[in-house]
Amino acid sequence: MSRQNVYFFGGGKADGNAGMKDLLGGKGANLAEMAGIGMPVPAGFTITTEVCTWFYENNGEYPPSLQEEVTGKLASIEDVMGAKFGDVNAPLLLSIRSGARVSMPGMMDTVLNLGLNDDTVKGLVKASGDERFAYDCYRRFIQMYGDVVLGMKPESKEGRDPFEEILEQKKVEAGVEQDVELSVSDLKDLIERYKAIIKSRLGIDFPVDPLEQLWKAIGAVFNSWHNDRAITYRRLNDIPGAWGTAVNVQAMVFGNLGDDSGTGVAFTRDPATGKNVFYGEYLMKAQGEDVVAGIRTPQPINRLQKGERDLPSLDVEMPGVYLSLEKIRSQLEDHYSDMQDLEFTIQNGRLWVLQTRTGKRTGFAAIRIAIDMVREGKISREEAIRRIDPEQLNQFLRPVFDPNGKKKAIAEGNLLATGINAGPGGATGKVVFHAEDAEEWARRGEKIILVRIETSPEDIRGMSVAEGILTSAGGATSHAALVGRQMGKVCVVGANTLKIDYRNRTIEAEGKTINEGDFISIDGMTGEVFSGQIETRPSEVLQVLIDKTLEAGDSETYRDYEELMNWADDIRRMGVRANADRPDQSAHAIAFGAEGIGLCRTEHMFFEGDRIDYFRQMILAPDESGRKKALEKLLPMQRSDFRGIFEIMGERPVTIRTLDPPLHEFLPHEDKEIEALARMMGIKVAIIKEKIESLKESNPMLGHRGCRLGIVYPEITEMQARAVFEAACDVVMDGGDPHPEIMIPLVGSLSELKLQEEIVRRVADEVQKEKGVNLEFLVGTMIEIPRAALTADEIASTAEFFSFGTNDLTQTTFGLSRDDASKFLGDYLAKGIWDADPFQKLDRQGVGSLVRIGIEKGRETKPDLKIGICGEHGGEPSSIEFCEKSGMDYVSCSPFRVPIARLAAAQAAMENVNE
Amino acid sequence: MSRQNVYFFGGGKADGNAGMKDLLGGKGANLAEMAGIGMPVPAGFTITTEVCTWFYENNGEYPPSLQEEVTGKLASIEDVMGAKFGDVNAPLLLSIRSGARVSMPGMMDTVLNLGLNDDTVKGLVKASGDERFAYDCYRRFIQMYGDVVLGMKPESKEGRDPFEEILEQKKVEAGVEQDVELSVSDLKDLIERYKAIIKSRLGIDFPVDPLEQLWKAIGAVFNSWHNDRAITYRRLNDIPGAWGTAVNVQAMVFGNLGDDSGTGVAFTRDPATGKNVFYGEYLMKAQGEDVVAGIRTPQPINRLQKGERDLPSLDVEMPGVYLSLEKIRSQLEDHYSDMQDLEFTIQNGRLWVLQTRTGKRTGFAAIRIAIDMVREGKISREEAIRRIDPEQLNQFLRPVFDPNGKKKAIAEGNLLATGINAGPGGATGKVVFHAEDAEEWARRGEKIILVRIETSPEDIRGMSVAEGILTSAGGATSHAALVGRQMGKVCVVGANTLKIDYRNRTIEAEGKTINEGDFISIDGMTGEVFSGQIETRPSEVLQVLIDKTLEAGDSETYRDYEELMNWADDIRRMGVRANADRPDQSAHAIAFGAEGIGLCRTEHMFFEGDRIDYFRQMILAPDESGRKKALEKLLPMQRSDFRGIFEIMGERPVTIRTLDPPLHEFLPHEDKEIEALARMMGIKVAIIKEKIESLKESNPMLGHRGCRLGIVYPEITEMQARAVFEAACDVVMDGGDPHPEIMIPLVGSLSELKLQEEIVRRVADEVQKEKGVNLEFLVGTMIEIPRAALTADEIASTAEFFSFGTNDLTQTTFGLSRDDASKFLGDYLAKGIWDADPFQKLDRQGVGSLVRIGIEKGRETKPDLKIGICGEHGGEPSSIEFCEKSGMDYVSCSPFRVPIARLAAAQAAMENVNE
Repeated sequence: MSRQNVYFFGGGKADGNAGMKDLLGGKGANLAEMAGIGMPVPAGFTITTEVCTWFYENNGEYPPSLQEEVTGKLASIEDVMGAKFGDVNAPLLLSIRSGARVSMPGMMDTVLNLGLNDDTVKGLVKASGDERFAYDCYRRFIQMYGDVVLGMKPESKEGRDPFEEILEQKKVEAGVEQDVELSVSDLKDLIERYKAIIKSRLGIDFPVDPLEQLWKAIGAVFNSWHNDRAITYRRLNDIPGAWGTAVNVQAMVFGNLGDDSGTGVAFTRDPATGKNVFYGEYLMKAQGEDVVAGIRTPQPINRLQKGERDLPSLDVEMPGVYLSLEKIRSQLEDHYSDMQDLEFTIQNGRLWVLQTRTGKRTGFAAIRIAIDMVREGKISREEAIRRIDPEQLNQFLRPVFDPNGKKKAIAEGNLLATGINAGPGGATGKVVFHAEDAEEWARRGEKIILVRIETSPEDIRGMSVAEGILTSAGGATSHAALVGRQMGKVCVVGANTLKIDYRNRTIEAEGKTINEGDFISIDGMTGEVFSGQIETRPSEVLQVLIDKTLEAGDSETYRDYEELMNWADDIRRMGVRANADRPDQSAHAIAFGAEGIGLCRTEHMFFEGDRIDYFRQMILAPDESGRKKALEKLLPMQRSDFRGIFEIMGERPVTIRTLDPPLHEFLPHEDKEIEALARMMGIKVAIIKEKIESLKESNPMLGHRGCRLGIVYPEITEMQARAVFEAACDVVMDGGDPHPEIMIPLVGSLSELKLQEEIVRRVADEVQKEKGVNLEFLVGTMIEIPRAALTADEIASTAEFFSFGTNDLTQTTFGLSRDDASKFLGDYLAKGIWDADPFQKLDRQGVGSLVRIGIEKGRETKPDLKIGICGEHGGEPSSIEFCEKSGMDYVSCSPFRVPIARLAAAQAAMENVNE
Repeated sequence: MSRQNVYFFGGGKADGNAGMKDLLGGKGANLAEMAGIGMPVPAGFTITTEVCTWFYENNGEYPPSLQEEVTGKLASIEDVMGAKFGDVNAPLLLSIRSGARVSMPGMMDTVLNLGLNDDTVKGLVKASGDERFAYDCYRRFIQMYGDVVLGMKPESKEGRDPFEEILEQKKVEAGVEQDVELSVSDLKDLIERYKAIIKSRLGIDFPVDPLEQLWKAIGAVFNSWHNDRAITYRRLNDIPGAWGTAVNVQAMVFGNLGDDSGTGVAFTRDPATGKNVFYGEYLMKAQGEDVVAGIRTPQPINRLQKGERDLPSLDVEMPGVYLSLEKIRSQLEDHYSDMQDLEFTIQNGRLWVLQTRTGKRTGFAAIRIAIDMVREGKISREEAIRRIDPEQLNQFLRPVFDPNGKKKAIAEGNLLATGINAGPGGATGKVVFHAEDAEEWARRGEKIILVRIETSPEDIRGMSVAEGILTSAGGATSHAALVGRQMGKVCVVGANTLKIDYRNRTIEAEGKTINEGDFISIDGMTGEVFSGQIETRPSEVLQVLIDKTLEAGDSETYRDYEELMNWADDIRRMGVRANADRPDQSAHAIAFGAEGIGLCRTEHMFFEGDRIDYFRQMILAPDESGRKKALEKLLPMQRSDFRGIFEIMGERPVTIRTLDPPLHEFLPHEDKEIEALARMMGIKVAIIKEKIESLKESNPMLGHRGCRLGIVYPEITEMQARAVFEAACDVVMDGGDPHPEIMIPLVGSLSELKLQEEIVRRVADEVQKEKGVNLEFLVGTMIEIPRAALTADEIASTAEFFSFGTNDLTQTTFGLSRDDASKFLGDYLAKGIWDADPFQKLDRQGVGSLVRIGIEKGRETKPDLKIGICGEHGGEPSSIEFCEKSGMDYVSCSPFRVPIARLAAAQAAMENVNE
């Protein structure tokens, strides 16, 4: 037991700090930290978690010294706040809150406005000049105290909270519907009725002594550590009961105590764009919830942010307070080395900071802030890399409006309004006003913009299917802005000149009426809202990398992207390749920084143009010689595809997988198509149908595919190998340096690989002799069924590389078809059987075990065996972390995910070193 | 290098013995062994493998002492045989044969009749009294010697053997077609031409000196160790080249040297019935091949065997020789303690034994011989168990075709096809193509064979009334094969040359058309399919155990079976259970000695009578309450099934698996059926069709099945648990002692098992309270997907037992659908990728690894975890051996395979101890 039971904070100093979470709980430690660095935090003190333990070990008694310590610290609060607890003129009011080591949101109890009684409430009336506010505080205090401290419960299981019951009754009597419509006398009457029911139920008077209130509230919070909700929550989250909770007692401040009071929220940088500008909103004569609720439109904290809007700003209205806030801003960034989100209250002209935490931001902002902070010397490159969620990079790739399109729209008078730019990107879609409609419209393939006055949690599914989100109320910290940012949606909020009419389903603005279903366009970078459609164009990054319509030097965004990618490339250990089947995809892969192709699916080439006809001819041939004839026609086509890919990929390795899907996937299924095919091939419909029938499979996933095709029809592998090697030799003869890596799919035993490898090597020898060229190439295998992983030691004796096909490996390890899993995926996620869709996030326990077994066994035989992954997981950050930990050499993913993989690989490399 | 290079055998003694295979080769060691135990083996000697090594290390030179040793041993041969090498009156002829440590059949060279020349051939004429025979021997000798020793080869790659060319030409000139039609002068002419071509090609005369012939032949045999064929064979069979071959030089004996010469083959016991009688055939004035060729009808060696046939017998014709043979018979059985098969020749009244080896026998014979030999004190019970191939027990259990009936059918050209022998026995009946028709035909007393391309669960009732089941598709573990075996049906599957046409109701095969209602006969022992009827016989064992139409005491066969089973039961460690779904199957299981039920598939119960209607109602219900209503109707039905099973099984454990197959398997597929269902349920056809559509799966094997059903529809598990526990309680109240073991299928993670286990235990508690009964029961899981094995440590924290479902585990480990594997199974077996169908014989390397991982991890958590297997592998001897080695507690298989499993388990237990 530490000698000190109570830790004070406030007045620019604190007994504790952020490192003392075990003793002070998370909240207490953070308050101490803020106070310690000079934040004007409302003063308070924290009773330690050790007192909680003592309390439980001693039947609800407190340590002997506690009373004295509390009394002392309470006096310090009074000093800092300049108000007395129980004072009848300007009373100090307190909040009493729990605070465990880890957050247990809503599980334990809280009491606010403590210190009010029939006398002090009058002091609050005086101080606030708002009688209704003061009595409402008092009414709420009694209700909260009654519930939490006195334990007033419903009379029966089905019953309601007794205070709520009285409140409802009162509203009926007063003929009003909302709490806020109750008058001062209504509230006073309620207070009396509350006291009366406490008396009649418990036989006691409501305690009027503030100190008695305080001690009882402290005891109630300690007791709430062991309430049912808290116990269940701890069990579910593996939190030890022995930890206990701390109790935080803190002065209350009010932003509605008169004309020189107010409240606001600010970000130390712009959370949407990441720009290094102070950004925030406030309301005078308001409480915290008013800013978020979106009923009144908040004001910008400075002129910069105000822009063209005709609103007052804090720097103008209260320059002194604004200056303090600016100072706090830089103090916070210096201290936390990250963008902070802070809540502040101005009480009678005095600034208080209530909370500060790392601010949520868009992907765009995240990257810009991280890079800027490196440039500012605030953080290291590694730290910058660590801070960015790789998925946020997607926001750099999202389409933007075509500048000319936007100019034209403005010229045509289509600019409807300018709101707050809450989620970058440009989006065009049909106006829909209700979340449910949004879901339905999206289901039938419509692109929609969800337009709301304000959003609420019920709208989340509708928001997730929308191209963009637009609100007329609410600020940068409104629900719409927060959620939109989190989802990475294009989002404009607070476009308050729009008149949104839910009943008629219209928007009125600039004299125009937009109906549901009409097109609008929103620019999440600028906050502009347009009627009609505006053409989008690729993001600046894509314009530089893919379209080459923009010079790297002309795009700040691109330069940020490039810088970040360079840092990531310096840090990562694993290679990053792309899955690409065609020359154009290969070009994209390189643009995104792929160092090779990890999976080229040769079958995709068979669907183009008239190739499918020859391929079908091959399938329908009655014998090997017929098949060979058809394959001969396919040979030059595949060869030219490979040539194209080799030319683009230069000396980078290109992993080419031999034919994988079952043959029936290539045959037509509809009568009309079958008839056309029969005519073209000059054979009977019945014969085609018979072939289709004979190729049908009960479980195609587990059927005649992969190397099983090449084993039954070696001529297919032979043709493919020939196409690869002829193309490679041709490229060499033209001065190129291709590095093909032939990959055999669905291998389950060494002998399967050997049979295919022999064909490949024989053809390679033949072609090299014919062309007089020496090639460097590898022959390897996919590891995508459990048996391959389990016999990897044998397989590695022939394979020159392994590539884990974790899509199939997941299917077989789970006995789970990717195509059918949706039937119960929802139930499985809801019931917590899976914490994520195993096809999205690699299952480390099951599939991961097999991957590790495969790697271990493979390297037993060949210590330097090259190993990669080419399943969808190769582009998913958590799976990439697993690949790093298991010692893979590279990951391969779709070209557009290559930047994500590069960043994730860098994070994984740092993570792995740190362990 | 050993001091002795040449080992003599003959005259009742030998320098070597059977233990000297490394030095003398397999053939030489066996000849020495036979001679050593007094067999009248034609005398000879073996030049050791060490000489071969020396020969290769010294450029084809021999060790210095070799010539002297050979000369000495040759003299010994002459002594024993009473004939001189090179003698012009009755010349000793020699065979020169290779003989390596392990048999390399046909890979190396042999020379026969060595010692003949223009002079000695005349001696052979005198001795045999058969000029044609003598000159044919000479002609063959020159040809063989020319090929092997002189290296006469075809002139070009496409050319023919020069001697064969001359022979063909001679036959043309002589106007004959067969070699045997050539006259003595033809042969003499041939000999001259042979010599001439040798002279013209090689410039040498054919060597006339027998000793020169001998030494050159010895050298040729040593050289043949390094011919291409032999090198390839050794590479394929992992035989080291350093081993070398021995050379066996042995006197030739002739069974056609006059009226007191002959040759024969004998078995020391009857190889068909196993009876302890001397059994054999011989021909006078004949060579070995004449007995086998079947041109002349061989004579029985004794009167006993002659029976009613009007033939001479050896015991009458040559009583002295027969007496010697009888003595040899008992000598051989005393020495080898097993039934022997021997070849003998009588040359001029003197008996020679050429070869003896363990005799092949039928399953019946194998068992009878083993048991008799135990009774005779020749072998131990363990040895008896070890000697019987468990599959041979099938011959004790299955009704079989009358052998003569089958011969006749083949002679008449009625063999239609040969498929896979999936359910042993013989069955004859009328062809029926549809399960419903099968039921109807059976009801009116017809014996039918159900003929399907493939069967599905809907066909079960039709299958159960059929005499036999025949399919054209599917393999040894297809639905038809599985269910057929379990039902004890005669079953042939995968007879893929049959064209089954459901529309015209015909089978086309071998140019015949079989119509519905025509008779066919299928032999489940051989896979043969015949048109027409063939009479069958029931097995005596079945008559005793199942039909109870025969007293155990009246059947010698049954007593043998019983004795063997008792011995096996004494030896085995693992328990043997049966897979049985119904009371009647449970009764069979017990009759065959099952100690419990290892797998009761509850879904099969849903197909009987009107249950399928309620089950479909459950599937089609729009919500949980609708499903519950339908399940309530199924509850009493399942309860009564379980009750029946518990009553029969007594206190033996009964493992009941909760619902496993995907729901779509229960819905109808044809329009007519769907319409009928719609009428019955009073709902729209469209709704049923929509449901069917929504339940369709791309890969049903990997779809919504197993515990995934019970997790999405907990009410199904609940009903099934209730049915089990109510039935068990009822049986307890009637004085029984049931032991249900509830088994959850397709579990892949602990949480799945837990969710289902909670339901089962809750229902168990409820039912026990309601009934006031205490039950002993277990809740466990199948381990049938890789993830379950890989996370078995976690799963074992809840599971009270594991049962390996190796059918599904094989499918997922290989990524291989049981239903689709037939498309490439043949290629895979032919190319040696698999040495057996992995669905028949457990793949130890892949699937076995997972089983071992699962057992190891499971027992890490629960050291005494009960573990069994309930896949088809549970009845397959090699897989049972694996189960024993991996430490399983029991195997479970179809009732009719229980005896096989008992025997195989005993063998495995001995094997495991020996290791």
